[in-house]
Amino acid sequence: MKPSIPKGTRDFSSSEVAKRNYIFNIIRHSFENFGFQPIETPSFEKSSTLMGKYGEEGDRLIFKILNSGNFLFEKNTIELPDSYEKIKHNSLDDLETSEKIELNKFTNRISTKALRYDLTVPFARYVVQHQNDITFPFKRYQIQPVWRADKPQKGRFREFYQCDADVVGSKSLVQEVEFVQLYDTVFSKLGLVGTTIKINNRKILSGIAEVIGASDKLIDFTVALDKLDKIGKEGVVKEMLEKGISEAAIEKVDPLFNFSGTNQDKLVSLEEMLKDSEEGIQGVNDLRTVVNMIEELGLTSATLELDVTLARGLNYYTGAIYEVAAPKGVKMGSIGGGGRYDDLTGIFGLKDVSGVGISFGLDRIYLVMEELNLFEAVELPKPKVLFMNFDESQSLSKIKAIKELRNNNIKSELYPDVAGSIKQQKKQWKYATNREIDFVVTDIENGTLVVKNMKAGEQFNCTVNELINKLQ
Amino acid sequence: MKPSIPKGTRDFSSSEVAKRNYIFNIIRHSFENFGFQPIETPSFEKSSTLMGKYGEEGDRLIFKILNSGNFLFEKNTIELPDSYEKIKHNSLDDLETSEKIELNKFTNRISTKALRYDLTVPFARYVVQHQNDITFPFKRYQIQPVWRADKPQKGRFREFYQCDADVVGSKSLVQEVEFVQLYDTVFSKLGLVGTTIKINNRKILSGIAEVIGASDKLIDFTVALDKLDKIGKEGVVKEMLEKGISEAAIEKVDPLFNFSGTNQDKLVSLEEMLKDSEEGIQGVNDLRTVVNMIEELGLTSATLELDVTLARGLNYYTGAIYEVAAPKGVKMGSIGGGGRYDDLTGIFGLKDVSGVGISFGLDRIYLVMEELNLFEAVELPKPKVLFMNFDESQSLSKIKAIKELRNNNIKSELYPDVAGSIKQQKKQWKYATNREIDFVVTDIENGTLVVKNMKAGEQFNCTVNELINKLQ
Repeated sequence: MKPSIPKGTRDFSSSEVAKRNYIFNIIRHSFENFGFQPIETPSFEKSSTLMGKYGEEGDRLIFKILNSGNFLFEKNTIELPDSYEKIKHNSLDDLETSEKIELNKFTNRISTKALRYDLTVPFARYVVQHQNDITFPFKRYQIQPVWRADKPQKGRFREFYQCDADVVGSKSLVQEVEFVQLYDTVFSKLGLVGTTIKINNRKILSGIAEVIGASDKLIDFTVALDKLDKIGKEGVVKEMLEKGISEAAIEKVDPLFNFSGTNQDKLVSLEEMLKDSEEGIQGVNDLRTVVNMIEELGLTSATLELDVTLARGLNYYTGAIYEVAAPKGVKMGSIGGGGRYDDLTGIFGLKDVSGVGISFGLDRIYLVMEELNLFEAVELPKPKVLFMNFDESQSLSKIKAIKELRNNNIKSELYPDVAGSIKQQKKQWKYATNREIDFVVTDIENGTLVVKNMKAGEQFNCTVNELINKLQ
Repeated sequence: MKPSIPKGTRDFSSSEVAKRNYIFNIIRHSFENFGFQPIETPSFEKSSTLMGKYGEEGDRLIFKILNSGNFLFEKNTIELPDSYEKIKHNSLDDLETSEKIELNKFTNRISTKALRYDLTVPFARYVVQHQNDITFPFKRYQIQPVWRADKPQKGRFREFYQCDADVVGSKSLVQEVEFVQLYDTVFSKLGLVGTTIKINNRKILSGIAEVIGASDKLIDFTVALDKLDKIGKEGVVKEMLEKGISEAAIEKVDPLFNFSGTNQDKLVSLEEMLKDSEEGIQGVNDLRTVVNMIEELGLTSATLELDVTLARGLNYYTGAIYEVAAPKGVKMGSIGGGGRYDDLTGIFGLKDVSGVGISFGLDRIYLVMEELNLFEAVELPKPKVLFMNFDESQSLSKIKAIKELRNNNIKSELYPDVAGSIKQQKKQWKYATNREIDFVVTDIENGTLVVKNMKAGEQFNCTVNELINKLQ
């Protein structure tokens, strides 16, 4: 039986590891350059830390770890709770509260630990647990894998990395400006020219809800408006009416249907539209501060776009909302996102700590860079110089030469087995070709190396020091 | 309720992450310098890949992941197998084979995936699964966490990193020389002067068993001999006799009791002692090749020591055996180990692939370096320059200056919130002190920064460019 790995997981070959590390290193370097400091949390947390933090859908997607030892109980049958029977063909939503508690107790008997589902909840737990050792405002970054029992599909895996930067303990808009700069910096360094950093503010959305007199219909409204490109104004209005938003309300926000022009134009429109909503005006002012600062500072390769339909994570973001779109022409969902949440650590008992943060989607960034051929600069992990092993009597001299090369940080190696035949010599040449080695040393005599430049196809003689000088 | 993490796991603060990365980077750089290429495997594997590969003790220490969805079955009670009842108060060893199979089936119904227990078995699985894409000999390295449900204690955790380098598809002794060099290189670069790289060979141990006519008593013999330092020759001989090794047999290997002198002296002794064992003599020749080459090449800071009591992993190593001891004076178990195994991939159906590899114990290396104060060179992740935020009207000029500094890779940040009072200004100074910031900019006016050197306590004025030049 051929061995294989669980669905939704991946092996990474050397060149894949090298390309992924190239992205990680640029993100890490930029995070630190912006003053963020790294932390790491365990791969698994207590179930009580994670459960109930991601909604019922999230709870279901958390990988639980079986208690070690005798995880079941004293008698030799287990009665499953009725609730267990019930969820076999229904959703968790159909359970009564008491049934949920019962099911939860049952699960706890066999599992009390679970794999990290995201980096935000463990970070909140970390902040509360270590609050006395942390200097606030706390600017932390975290680059670690997370696990989700999601249905695997293209670009969606059961094990994947998140790269998060967050600031907690400050409500300053300066941070919101910095995150725009941080996105621009990372994507520019990656050579990913032409990304669009979309920005919105929860207060704008609340203001719209207030103006149309329908706070409960905000999501319906936003979802409909988001389709403007595809179904036109007529289609959007039809959908809004169907959802029970009144004609008079739609009238009030009419400018949203022609929402084009510069960010400044949009701000003027919004200000007029939301003039009767205090919260809405606050949102306009917040966004204007960010837009103005970014106009003063300039961006290297990204464009900042005020997008009033942007509503990701609407249920927990309370201020700025970010999302980054890949360069036009590349078919890919968002490659980054984030926002401000005013009560990050409240779930663990520490009140009034505001946080704002962004995340980079490594796997999608990887796919986009692959499509745009942006990995050419990545040095693949292979030796620069391979010493052939045709003659055992030369082994020691060759190993000595290799030591010198390595001392000068020139990756090199000796083919391990001595070739006892022409066939085995051919095997060594094939190895050099397969690994795309640049320089092959066939012989060494009295300190002179016989070197073949594999790309140019030419051969030359030199000393070890000459080779070092040539390759440095 | 104060949040906490599962026992045996750890949070890492910024300075801990920085120090750990310092070690990782040196190991990674050296691995690549020696021609090893990275791979990564998923955090969890199919249970069938892992179970049965580490002995029964190992199987018990593997963390199993609960099947997602409806992991139990169609009716609402589960009958536990009799074997389950039996292991509640006994060990797995007490089960009949049929009971083990039954228990295994039961476990499979609730769990089919498990967290990686080490890097060697997933590597073997990788080699077999990707054998058509791999160029042999395959020199791979892998730096990833592993998980074990072991009883946590000082220096032993339930989640910890392994750093492995292995070569598969070659039986050459050149590799065994290279691993000695690799250990010496890494520990020298870490500043860990005075490590002892102990080396032995399975064939020597087999030879001894042959000579004393007791292949089945080899482990008893080695364990007793290992106590020579503590209980003296008399004590060791007593223990050997108790274990049923004959006086005549002990006589034959008498030189082992005075096994001192240089590695060459030891080789001469061994050659004489093992002259009647073909395998033993082969072991002497192998070790001599390695010892001679290392004498020719020299080591930077480590000492190579032939240690005939070294028997770690005796059940799977077939050739060289390595272990590294921390510098004398530091109380710590081995900080590295490895060896040759002749049938790494056989368990997955690919026969006759010989492997040899070594591992670095990150957590122990960390503890040793901490004890010896070897982390002074590590740059902690914090901004070099902090801009105070006392006057909102200066924000934009300060953010512009920060952008210039960052473009020149000088980590810097603006304190996010504007100080509206003396008390809030003090908070910013406290922040600078707590984070041990080197340079604080209080004001910017007409392009001139007012900078305070926090270490020297002195204040000076300069332009952004002058500050960049000063700090680069």
